[in-house]
Amino acid sequence: MKRSFIREILEHTSSDTISFAGGLPDASLFPTIELQQATQTALADNSIWQYSTSTGYAPLKALIAQMYCDKGFPTTAEEILITSGSQQGLDIICRYHSGVSIIIESPSYLGALNIFKLNNMNEHSVSLNSKGIEIEAFKTSIKESQLTYLIPDFQNPSGTCYSKEHREEIAKLLGASDTLLIEDSPYSELYFDKPQQSISQALPKQSYHLGSFSKVLSPALRIGWIRADKSLTSPLIAYKEAMDLHTSSITQAIAYEYLKDTEQFNEHLETLRSAYKEKMLYFANALDEILPSFEYTRPKGGMFIYGKFEGVDTMLFVEKCLEKGVVFVPGSEFGGKADEIRFNFTHSSLPLIREGLKRIKLCLYKGLE
Amino acid sequence: MKRSFIREILEHTSSDTISFAGGLPDASLFPTIELQQATQTALADNSIWQYSTSTGYAPLKALIAQMYCDKGFPTTAEEILITSGSQQGLDIICRYHSGVSIIIESPSYLGALNIFKLNNMNEHSVSLNSKGIEIEAFKTSIKESQLTYLIPDFQNPSGTCYSKEHREEIAKLLGASDTLLIEDSPYSELYFDKPQQSISQALPKQSYHLGSFSKVLSPALRIGWIRADKSLTSPLIAYKEAMDLHTSSITQAIAYEYLKDTEQFNEHLETLRSAYKEKMLYFANALDEILPSFEYTRPKGGMFIYGKFEGVDTMLFVEKCLEKGVVFVPGSEFGGKADEIRFNFTHSSLPLIREGLKRIKLCLYKGLE
Repeated sequence: MKRSFIREILEHTSSDTISFAGGLPDASLFPTIELQQATQTALADNSIWQYSTSTGYAPLKALIAQMYCDKGFPTTAEEILITSGSQQGLDIICRYHSGVSIIIESPSYLGALNIFKLNNMNEHSVSLNSKGIEIEAFKTSIKESQLTYLIPDFQNPSGTCYSKEHREEIAKLLGASDTLLIEDSPYSELYFDKPQQSISQALPKQSYHLGSFSKVLSPALRIGWIRADKSLTSPLIAYKEAMDLHTSSITQAIAYEYLKDTEQFNEHLETLRSAYKEKMLYFANALDEILPSFEYTRPKGGMFIYGKFEGVDTMLFVEKCLEKGVVFVPGSEFGGKADEIRFNFTHSSLPLIREGLKRIKLCLYKGLE
Repeated sequence: MKRSFIREILEHTSSDTISFAGGLPDASLFPTIELQQATQTALADNSIWQYSTSTGYAPLKALIAQMYCDKGFPTTAEEILITSGSQQGLDIICRYHSGVSIIIESPSYLGALNIFKLNNMNEHSVSLNSKGIEIEAFKTSIKESQLTYLIPDFQNPSGTCYSKEHREEIAKLLGASDTLLIEDSPYSELYFDKPQQSISQALPKQSYHLGSFSKVLSPALRIGWIRADKSLTSPLIAYKEAMDLHTSSITQAIAYEYLKDTEQFNEHLETLRSAYKEKMLYFANALDEILPSFEYTRPKGGMFIYGKFEGVDTMLFVEKCLEKGVVFVPGSEFGGKADEIRFNFTHSSLPLIREGLKRIKLCLYKGLE
């Protein structure tokens, strides 16, 4: 198996490389003081250092279930399975369903593509358009697929957010079939204008809804979860157990102590949304000014700007850029076209965004000479 | 797949059930104050909340490598791959080698047996005797096995500790073959009298040595590691990445900040060794007094006493015991004989050990009526 481009890059770039590659949150926005306080409270209970249950820390499961209920999606704590990041959540599901046919968006999340390979899944790629996955091709694929993997909110890498009508159409088609939905939604809270209802909410017994605190609180906690009907989560518990016994109860308790102050978390989400919207606008304006040949659509949330330099082989191009101290991910890594690129706009500071795009400009003109 | 007996029990017993079932450390011995201090230091660096590298937190890898060097086993940080508990370490190795033939001790660790099933391994069971795995059967099995999985130090469940001569013999046989060793050693530091040299030390290029902080520091950290030659760890990194991106850098940093005070850790290990030796003696003396028909050998370290009630079906028996508020693991769960039992002696307090054994006595005589 091949390592992920992004994670190899993360390990091998020097500290002065400007990275638009990984899906890294803006570290300056982590609520570090509040997280430190939450940690102190969590560690006041000495029993937290002992082994814990495989399905997750009970207070955290109850709190996540409540978050769904508050969105109008009735959920009990028993329908939540805590995982070591949503990456592990997807792996558990695919390991249980290993070898089956799965519909995926094209392009799609690199980490998911690796999981599908690892579990010998039979992939049916269906293109995305600006409203979501292409309906006609999706209809055809449903008939021969047991699973479908979608990222409807500010999709990785494309940034696409499924429209309300598109979500309803997908839910209707899936509802009339036996195909199970895996809805991956790490970015759903990172909307700039308004939230969208999950597709899973219309298919509560036919979906695995994957959540994560990595993009909205801290990735180092390594906490994600699967929300699904009990009949779907039950057989997964033995897999979770065999794979790592349980997710750290230390980080689960820290997350719980932070999140139980609902108002504090909601304020933090508001801060993230407005800061990321501002960063996206800054990045997009700088792109338009410095690299006007880059074609893209401005996203309505999430962490990525996706587009293309028409006719440029971005896999060769990124190697030149790396030499000049700037990096991004070529679209082909996600199953996209050879001239496409994904830029992360959340990680770098505003001055570094400008500087990074200028470095790319230098390589671009050199490349076209 | 079936869930583990122990972990189901952990989730479903009431708080007044006395448990000799799980491999739980004595919670009263966790160095909680020192761990709290280590946590404060770890969280003083705000960048700790960000994504981290897949192979592990660099200072922790270096420190673990140094621990090997201090034991006379030359090791570099590149030869350490941090995993989410050694459970995940074993799963990563088996997933990479999925479907091959593997020699296992009989009986063996339940969590490992589940991993072997999950990865479609072809198991060759070889019985243990008081010195270690039976050499003649082992010799025969080597010829048709790519892997061998051994727990030479205070084996789970049997408590067996391989003798020096036995280790040398195993290393010689493996060295003359192409079979790779997976040496699982979560209990190696929990010796009552003297440490043993790992078998891997004689086979540095032909072994995966699995370590863990779960039994000697805190299981809630979920930190284990694989120590192996770079040619063996390199192909595993892509698997680790696909499975959970990386292990929590929060818990890794906590462990590092605690462990870097070598003297503090060594003193803690001394405390654990003497406290566990005392508990083993207390448990064994109480067994001899209350349940004299239980046949077993006193272990020289670790966490378990393994033996039998001749002719008693311990799987039926444990159900009766559960009703009376005491639980242990029947030997058959580990691939052992139907009348065997594994008792954990580290978890319960001395008064509860006595009370638990009395409850078992009541069930035993009732069962034999």
